[in-house]
Amino acid sequence: MINVGIVGGTGYTGVELLRFLVQHPEVNIQAITSRSEAGMDVAELFTSLRGHIDLKFSDPVESKLETCDLVFFATPNGIAMQETKSLIKAGVKVIDLAADFRIKDIAEWEKWYGMQHACPDLVAEAVYGLPEINREQIKTARLIANPGCYPTAVQLGFLPLIEAGIVDINHLIADVKSGVSGAGRKAAVHTLHAEASDNFKAYGVPGHRHLPEIKQGLSRIANKPVGLTFVPHLVPMIRGIHATLYAKLAEDVDLQTLYEKRYIDESFVDVLPSGMHPETRSVRGSNLCRIAVHQPQNSDTAVILSVTDNLVKGAAGQAIQNMNLMFDLPETMGINQVPLLP
Amino acid sequence: MINVGIVGGTGYTGVELLRFLVQHPEVNIQAITSRSEAGMDVAELFTSLRGHIDLKFSDPVESKLETCDLVFFATPNGIAMQETKSLIKAGVKVIDLAADFRIKDIAEWEKWYGMQHACPDLVAEAVYGLPEINREQIKTARLIANPGCYPTAVQLGFLPLIEAGIVDINHLIADVKSGVSGAGRKAAVHTLHAEASDNFKAYGVPGHRHLPEIKQGLSRIANKPVGLTFVPHLVPMIRGIHATLYAKLAEDVDLQTLYEKRYIDESFVDVLPSGMHPETRSVRGSNLCRIAVHQPQNSDTAVILSVTDNLVKGAAGQAIQNMNLMFDLPETMGINQVPLLP
Amino acid sequence: MINVGIVGGTGYTGVELLRFLVQHPEVNIQAITSRSEAGMDVAELFTSLRGHIDLKFSDPVESKLETCDLVFFATPNGIAMQETKSLIKAGVKVIDLAADFRIKDIAEWEKWYGMQHACPDLVAEAVYGLPEINREQIKTARLIANPGCYPTAVQLGFLPLIEAGIVDINHLIADVKSGVSGAGRKAAVHTLHAEASDNFKAYGVPGHRHLPEIKQGLSRIANKPVGLTFVPHLVPMIRGIHATLYAKLAEDVDLQTLYEKRYIDESFVDVLPSGMHPETRSVRGSNLCRIAVHQPQNSDTAVILSVTDNLVKGAAGQAIQNMNLMFDLPETMGINQVPLLP
Amino acid sequence: MINVGIVGGTGYTGVELLRFLVQHPEVNIQAITSRSEAGMDVAELFTSLRGHIDLKFSDPVESKLETCDLVFFATPNGIAMQETKSLIKAGVKVIDLAADFRIKDIAEWEKWYGMQHACPDLVAEAVYGLPEINREQIKTARLIANPGCYPTAVQLGFLPLIEAGIVDINHLIADVKSGVSGAGRKAAVHTLHAEASDNFKAYGVPGHRHLPEIKQGLSRIANKPVGLTFVPHLVPMIRGIHATLYAKLAEDVDLQTLYEKRYIDESFVDVLPSGMHPETRSVRGSNLCRIAVHQPQNSDTAVILSVTDNLVKGAAGQAIQNMNLMFDLPETMGINQVPLLP
Repeated sequence: MINVGIVGGTGYTGVELLRFLVQHPEVNIQAITSRSEAGMDVAELFTSLRGHIDLKFSDPVESKLETCDLVFFATPNGIAMQETKSLIKAGVKVIDLAADFRIKDIAEWEKWYGMQHACPDLVAEAVYGLPEINREQIKTARLIANPGCYPTAVQLGFLPLIEAGIVDINHLIADVKSGVSGAGRKAAVHTLHAEASDNFKAYGVPGHRHLPEIKQGLSRIANKPVGLTFVPHLVPMIRGIHATLYAKLAEDVDLQTLYEKRYIDESFVDVLPSGMHPETRSVRGSNLCRIAVHQPQNSDTAVILSVTDNLVKGAAGQAIQNMNLMFDLPETMGINQVPLLP
Repeated sequence: MINVGIVGGTGYTGVELLRFLVQHPEVNIQAITSRSEAGMDVAELFTSLRGHIDLKFSDPVESKLETCDLVFFATPNGIAMQETKSLIKAGVKVIDLAADFRIKDIAEWEKWYGMQHACPDLVAEAVYGLPEINREQIKTARLIANPGCYPTAVQLGFLPLIEAGIVDINHLIADVKSGVSGAGRKAAVHTLHAEASDNFKAYGVPGHRHLPEIKQGLSRIANKPVGLTFVPHLVPMIRGIHATLYAKLAEDVDLQTLYEKRYIDESFVDVLPSGMHPETRSVRGSNLCRIAVHQPQNSDTAVILSVTDNLVKGAAGQAIQNMNLMFDLPETMGINQVPLLP
Repeated sequence: MINVGIVGGTGYTGVELLRFLVQHPEVNIQAITSRSEAGMDVAELFTSLRGHIDLKFSDPVESKLETCDLVFFATPNGIAMQETKSLIKAGVKVIDLAADFRIKDIAEWEKWYGMQHACPDLVAEAVYGLPEINREQIKTARLIANPGCYPTAVQLGFLPLIEAGIVDINHLIADVKSGVSGAGRKAAVHTLHAEASDNFKAYGVPGHRHLPEIKQGLSRIANKPVGLTFVPHLVPMIRGIHATLYAKLAEDVDLQTLYEKRYIDESFVDVLPSGMHPETRSVRGSNLCRIAVHQPQNSDTAVILSVTDNLVKGAAGQAIQNMNLMFDLPETMGINQVPLLP
Repeated sequence: MINVGIVGGTGYTGVELLRFLVQHPEVNIQAITSRSEAGMDVAELFTSLRGHIDLKFSDPVESKLETCDLVFFATPNGIAMQETKSLIKAGVKVIDLAADFRIKDIAEWEKWYGMQHACPDLVAEAVYGLPEINREQIKTARLIANPGCYPTAVQLGFLPLIEAGIVDINHLIADVKSGVSGAGRKAAVHTLHAEASDNFKAYGVPGHRHLPEIKQGLSRIANKPVGLTFVPHLVPMIRGIHATLYAKLAEDVDLQTLYEKRYIDESFVDVLPSGMHPETRSVRGSNLCRIAVHQPQNSDTAVILSVTDNLVKGAAGQAIQNMNLMFDLPETMGINQVPLLP
């Protein structure tokens, strides 16, 4: 059994980690910390967990996280970078679901996240936790930077095209749509039901924090810098990301076969048969990324459709996938549920 | 032309007042005040109004509201009671869309609203602004207590039954459902889209502030105290109230005829033909209350269905209806739009 | 392993049965029949099941259902009653998720369902599959009439009150709200997204097919006929039922204790602590019924709030709970998932 | 007063036409035809219109449409082309809200719409009813092909860029999202609330009927064929279109100024200040198209955001705008309502 701690368990990634971990056969949840809710029953805040957990939120200082085998940070950006070093020293493995260790270029990170980085040296060591690219490094990592939700869907969508070297990497376009839970469980006006439902809009077109993360990932695959236009949108739904990706083809290749071959051994990437369109609900509550490949009117523009559940493959599920790899468990253990449809 | 001021124009009742007033043929909007947004273009906050208004939010102190003919308070509870007296003294008429002047029993008000009342004497003078009951008093009033959203739908639904004296008034039941805009445009967790959509719940069953307001209204009609169980629910929709009302019949009466006769002269109450069920979208964006009358299986239980748009007949539209009455304008002027369906 | 057949697998109860059964450790799905989709991969119709099932829909005639241990009917009303007798004769157990065997009074059934009953004798034998009431009979039954979605939430809500004999059973009121999936996966105008979303309405107030089923159930508990006013409403959400129940108390009893004691041994009924309000998403995707008990202002009116997922405890999950009982498996096997929240 | 007839008034464009026309000061609605609903009160089908209209649906044959001044066709594709010729002959002007007269290339039309065209000669005469491009021809036209919903938002978005000749017109990308009402008011499974809500997907990527219409329009502006990738998506909302448009810039131009100048005289096109993002609800129920112009990270990719209400500027509102032009009325008459927000 793996003794697990969760720091910051009151947000959506926190409750989603719990949903999977309370039924994971090899996990014991030792502590869930929350400064604001210390002392409250977890199942009182999240009534969906009544009967499945009897822990209380505990104060971070008193939670003895250094005795865990693994600690998940489900905190706002800027927390994990302050507490990870001592945990690592104590022999605890760490998976950060926030952005603290995702960007290798410290100056770039500080520009986008608006704060000074507290432990740049661990950034260098951290492994970017996208198993479909970094599986082997993840297995031996002490510190995982769990990818963002948009970056997961976009990178898995573009990956085969860029690896194959068959597209113009200077003009990639990612038109991406997210459910509202991506904004987190925090009081705000613009994500109120009365504001966000029956409505659709783009946001952050001049610049979004996931842009440098995606560009870093795609540039590594390409082995040179890529040019990317990234436009996120807010969809009136709870969960789900839909990435619509455009790339100009430099060669004539059978895209369907390319994608099927690339992902044939991946448990959590499902390439749909030719001609289909994935829908976000087909992965609701699951760790899957479903992808469809199109080349409309046989033009030189490839259109890739990639969907995930932002809270699962885009956050908590992928974190547990990484945990399974780090602790030599079957990669799908505890995260192989059937999507909830309808 | 009526010179109008609006205090607190940044919430949903504020923007809804503006939607109607910018096209009202007899209204000039002199000022819209907001402490927090003073100096900002109204149309920058509410882009729906671009091209229809070129006012800026102004600081309340500098807005010379005492030169208006009429001031609407679209503020949180507890503001209007502090500023109304000086306006009234200056000859300005006042319509308060909040709760400050709704409850005649000051102690009762203070219990439910958790603060001391700042001007009890004006409470006595204030006219409860439900035109279907108080039309004549409204015409000559200096101060209107505009009814709450739930109380409007519930009172209009029960009114003919209680006036006719044919039901057990000790066991009235109002099972009422509201769209999320009823909670206002303020940052909160429980009304986030990711919390409130694809979900349904009751709230405030032990006690809700609209309970004493409804009981006061129904008791006046009955000329004695009524017993009421009032259960509000939150519906994953933006606008709309649906009241399902239950009353035990003491006599056998043709309910359909009773309702049709009672409301035959009312422009904003529509009694549906026998057998129909009103839906909230049939009044979306309009000042209407639609009512259907049922007596299932010919039992002794009457079931009344009453729907309104909580922001219109339940707030801004009714306020303008009151304004029209106070200034001797046609009652429907500026608020006779067709509901938006679908 | 239990060999299971599903008749009519293309609706919501069908796909929901599959969601649970493909991961049930003691079930082998032998056949899923559909006249209209025979030959199509199940996972092509329901992409959420890709990777979890490789069956095709098969023609009912060729599906050798008589070799199954158990057949679920997830069909429209009127199908199961024609095919059940031969299956029972062949030694196959049957669980009907439709209404064919729910009403003991054949004339009453024929009145509400508008057709002649094809096998009245099996109606007498059929056990009403509400385990919290009929657990022992279910264990030995050959034929289960799986309860309707509204009846499950309403009966579990009223049960302790009526068993205790402390309410006026002549004036029970059930104001019940359902998500749109309750109307099934069939082409229709009134349940289109553009019709049903951002909208709320009552329907079927003069009479709804679940009324006689609920009255039959409550009357059995009371050992005499009950009087019930039942008003269903359509909520713009996918899944979930919220029953708000009203009963006039004849005695002063500690309702909270009454409910907690009644359900203390039930795995799938969760009585919330005093003062709480259940929300439908707290049971989304799960087999739970959560109940809260209120007595507002200490009046003589009890208000019971009861929520379920209409497709799970209101249909497929309860059917599997019955299967577990019939085949002497742990009652929670395969249906103990954590609800999906948010 | 203009005597108006509406053919096919039972769909969403029909009820939306009525919403505007019943309050248009210069319109008398003479007849609304419907084969299926002949004899039914219009306000019985669309309860939102109760009190605003007392017409019944009439049989097309008996409706004397040839005595109207103008007939709107709010019918499925393929109807108007059969009935327009005789109306035109009788001196009646016609506005077709369907696709029958939109595509000049008859063979192309027949390929995409799967039927033979019934009157190709009128296709040549028909004026494409996008006032921002064809205002002068519209004023004198006898027959208007009212543009599709996607084509309106996309063409108005690309127009200034293409007129200015500053983009690569061989690789235009239109990633477009529509509310569900775009699919019409007809029984279907894929647009059920339980299917379409809390979900997002692309559709028609291999080819959509609006593609040739948009390409025709853009090619005319460019005076040569354009290359366009067009990907429509279904958004879980009732109304609204959001077009996210991508074009590679060939020159360095001040895009904000370009757009503001182009649309400065247009009543229904609103160019937002630099840096803003339009949202669909900001035009809900109104005839506006709001546009924002971006050039992220100063790359050579322009990103244009264009929103409309698909039932208004994308259908009924634009039709009335065309009517106003044809009958020499103020262009905004009857369609200048404030959008409904929230």
